[in-house]
Amino acid sequence: MTLQEVKESFRTVQDFPKKGIQFIDFTTALKKPECIKTMSNALCDYYKDKGITKVVGIESRGFFMATAICTRIDAGFVPLRKPGKLPAETISESYQKEYGTDTIEIHKDALTEDDVVLLHDDILATGGTVFAAIKLIKKFNVKKIYLNFIGEIDFLGGREKIDKEIDVYSLFHV
Amino acid sequence: MTLQEVKESFRTVQDFPKKGIQFIDFTTALKKPECIKTMSNALCDYYKDKGITKVVGIESRGFFMATAICTRIDAGFVPLRKPGKLPAETISESYQKEYGTDTIEIHKDALTEDDVVLLHDDILATGGTVFAAIKLIKKFNVKKIYLNFIGEIDFLGGREKIDKEIDVYSLFHV
Repeated sequence: MTLQEVKESFRTVQDFPKKGIQFIDFTTALKKPECIKTMSNALCDYYKDKGITKVVGIESRGFFMATAICTRIDAGFVPLRKPGKLPAETISESYQKEYGTDTIEIHKDALTEDDVVLLHDDILATGGTVFAAIKLIKKFNVKKIYLNFIGEIDFLGGREKIDKEIDVYSLFHV
Repeated sequence: MTLQEVKESFRTVQDFPKKGIQFIDFTTALKKPECIKTMSNALCDYYKDKGITKVVGIESRGFFMATAICTRIDAGFVPLRKPGKLPAETISESYQKEYGTDTIEIHKDALTEDDVVLLHDDILATGGTVFAAIKLIKKFNVKKIYLNFIGEIDFLGGREKIDKEIDVYSLFHV
């Protein structure tokens, strides 16, 4: 199966989560073994020689594919979660949303300065959450950060706002 | 690495999410490549010959390991989510919690009656969420349901309340 064929399995949902938004729903692809395998293979091919030690997934859709990658490239998995969800001591980062602010957290002992991190989420749109996630990961002085998305919404321009030294790879562009 | 050695990487957090609860934190194992690989190998060994077509993960900690399993046993992945999180048409099931009720949802087109389902979550405690999840999956008239947990808290007796015809496998008992 090709990535183009996987893309044909995505579903667009109108007005979700609110009016005017066209939501790209991957669950229609994830439920098909050939689709999830094709996506996982493509990600592992791209990242297998990068020396990645930890895959950091952003709650919740960034958890879907994270361990499918890390078990195959010999990396560990670290969840980046909403406030109050991680049991031990955390550090956090807040960011502006359209209305009000949001916060993400990571365990204080989740990463070390020896780590090469693959930060993974489902979609790169305007980038708010991911910029906060990068800030949070940088506090650990990790060796390097790679950034990966299943899909990237090109016209929203999230990529232009990301530090140029960060390698950004998206499986699909819409 | 043995499963016993993985277990030694777990962390117990006192009074989380509330006073009196000893929370078993797997993130300390998930971040270690050898630990996540050992857990994933054990799960794949157990489920590889069961003809499983879909791994259903329960939000959110049940998402952590779900695709690490399904990409290796040629199954698809289906998320079971909190209300309002799935974009397309859903069916839902409510259940009693200590205070008030909770609801879980699944996409209406997520499963078919040809499916053999592996329902996966992180912990079997008293079982409230998982009983609702089983009810929900049964509405699709699937061929068979397998049930898997990373950890099972034996003294809470969740297992005794599960239908005897369902195969339940937990990697760890505490």
